[in-house]
Amino acid sequence: MKHNFGAGPGILPHEVLKQAAAAVVDFGGIGLSILEISHRSPEFESVLDEAVKLVKELFNVPEGYSVLFLQGGASTQFALAPYNLLPDGGKAAYLETGVWANKALKEAKFFGEVEVVATSKDKNFTYIPKDYTIPTDAAYFHITSNNTIYGTQLQEFPKSPIPVVCDMSSDIFSRKVNVADFGLIYAGAQKNMGPAGVTLVIVKDSILGKTGRKIPAMFNYQVQIEGGSMYNTPPVFAIYVSMLTLNWLKSKGGVAAIEKENIAKARVLYEEIDRNPFFKPVCEVEDRSHMNVCFVMENPDLEKAFLKLCDDKDIIGIKGHRSVGGFRASIYNALPITSVYVLIDAMQEFAEKNKV
Amino acid sequence: MKHNFGAGPGILPHEVLKQAAAAVVDFGGIGLSILEISHRSPEFESVLDEAVKLVKELFNVPEGYSVLFLQGGASTQFALAPYNLLPDGGKAAYLETGVWANKALKEAKFFGEVEVVATSKDKNFTYIPKDYTIPTDAAYFHITSNNTIYGTQLQEFPKSPIPVVCDMSSDIFSRKVNVADFGLIYAGAQKNMGPAGVTLVIVKDSILGKTGRKIPAMFNYQVQIEGGSMYNTPPVFAIYVSMLTLNWLKSKGGVAAIEKENIAKARVLYEEIDRNPFFKPVCEVEDRSHMNVCFVMENPDLEKAFLKLCDDKDIIGIKGHRSVGGFRASIYNALPITSVYVLIDAMQEFAEKNKV
Repeated sequence: MKHNFGAGPGILPHEVLKQAAAAVVDFGGIGLSILEISHRSPEFESVLDEAVKLVKELFNVPEGYSVLFLQGGASTQFALAPYNLLPDGGKAAYLETGVWANKALKEAKFFGEVEVVATSKDKNFTYIPKDYTIPTDAAYFHITSNNTIYGTQLQEFPKSPIPVVCDMSSDIFSRKVNVADFGLIYAGAQKNMGPAGVTLVIVKDSILGKTGRKIPAMFNYQVQIEGGSMYNTPPVFAIYVSMLTLNWLKSKGGVAAIEKENIAKARVLYEEIDRNPFFKPVCEVEDRSHMNVCFVMENPDLEKAFLKLCDDKDIIGIKGHRSVGGFRASIYNALPITSVYVLIDAMQEFAEKNKV
Repeated sequence: MKHNFGAGPGILPHEVLKQAAAAVVDFGGIGLSILEISHRSPEFESVLDEAVKLVKELFNVPEGYSVLFLQGGASTQFALAPYNLLPDGGKAAYLETGVWANKALKEAKFFGEVEVVATSKDKNFTYIPKDYTIPTDAAYFHITSNNTIYGTQLQEFPKSPIPVVCDMSSDIFSRKVNVADFGLIYAGAQKNMGPAGVTLVIVKDSILGKTGRKIPAMFNYQVQIEGGSMYNTPPVFAIYVSMLTLNWLKSKGGVAAIEKENIAKARVLYEEIDRNPFFKPVCEVEDRSHMNVCFVMENPDLEKAFLKLCDDKDIIGIKGHRSVGGFRASIYNALPITSVYVLIDAMQEFAEKNKV
């Protein structure tokens, strides 16, 4: 068995993969593959309905919000958020906490003015800025809840006088969130929700339709809401596997239960990083991510040897992003704590072997 | 065994489905699912490379063209084509051969002027207009090669003084095409190429970068070309299954071989429609599609009884689109001629039973 610490597309629950594989051959005993049925068939319509229902249930989505399953990843949402929310000549506020936040704000500049209220670029995004004021004259305030590359995470969401737009790609469904605090939440599925190829959008209906801008159908949230995510053919299989994964999460006790597990996984791993003299953390303690645990070696010359040891132990995907270096252990919902202990054991074994 | 005549997402080859299901459990023996590996892994990079190579090989794509696998379906391309090709204040020419062509031209109106050079709306799109002039002062000429809803198909492509943009969603890889005659070809995968969730784009590099318009990254063909379809996380599984399907097509002898089979399938089915007194065709003979065969009953009161007979014989997906009525048998690449004969036998049995 592999211990998959990859940053994404990331680990999915074993039972979900088994169900998904079976459906590729024969979906629910109908004699057809999930890959070759109409998206207008009752079979798929109930998959989509169930997926929307599970999102609403697991995330306590209040009335007045729409749940969409779209294509194009979070990178497409970087453009669609301002396309739909930022009037010509208007302003949007952004919190710059990493490369992805930076890409998001660059797309907003195609549609209006951008005010970066704070940035942690000065320390290579190893902390979350907290001392800033959200401008009341901006159309929205954009944040990135978890920064996959650097291993930082907003532990508290800002109280905002304007709608908050949040890229939750790398920690959605990993912890409790009060959806009512947001105007728009979006997330590529491929970390905590399903396979690559589908993007979840949760949007407060009342913030739409205020820019006066005309928007092509596929880029228009209102059109997608009216089409029930089926204005055109949706990514059937990716939605199906997301539905299975959300169902798995529900069977585990939902977001509150998985949050406890995620905290436990992160805690034991950070404890080892703090304790083990061969490793050291990358980020500010108070901003540490419970999803992507970044760490480096006291002696970088030993990195290759540690990666080799991990490889021998079937620990995969822990090489750090090139802009940070070292290691990154992504411990998404589907990663069992037993895999975290395999990594901790490897760190301890490595320290024992290499001590002087 | 079901005989899947659905219009799309449509039938895929049985061996492709078996391979795809195996990869969902364990991809190539690496101990991980295709759904949980990084898109930057060597394993996926070779899938994508192979998919691009197969497109180039099967379709004889000349030098100077780029092959992209994107998200969002043809409906997104309806907007991206003018976004990338139609300058502000410029004009684009469209041939209106159905609802999809109409949706495409509506999106172009967000970006410039649209000239509809000809339409077959007067006869509910049951023919392809041929008597028209392509304006030389337009940025491009947009056509739809096959009209899924009505069962018409362009049997010849126009000689055009300006770049031809073609929506080939429902007949790509079903027949030989001279790619050099086109500036841009796009197709949702879910009919002849793979599952829903990926869109093929073949674009002539030299037609890009001429509008002066600034384009957000995900909507910009040039950015997607530079990123090798991986500007962001691509739809891994949908690309993988497309690669398998293209490989299957190659093993069948490629596009030239499948075209002969498709012609044979269409021929026997149209012969039965023309011969059988209970059924009649919908479209002009010379514009008949080899992919979507539309027909109605002489006596519409018998429709339900025929659908019931089809159901008994495991013939599925032949109910016609609501805007045409009657029946539509989609006979995509993966549908064996034996299934067509099962349908023909049902038509003959029905005629025999109901004759007076």
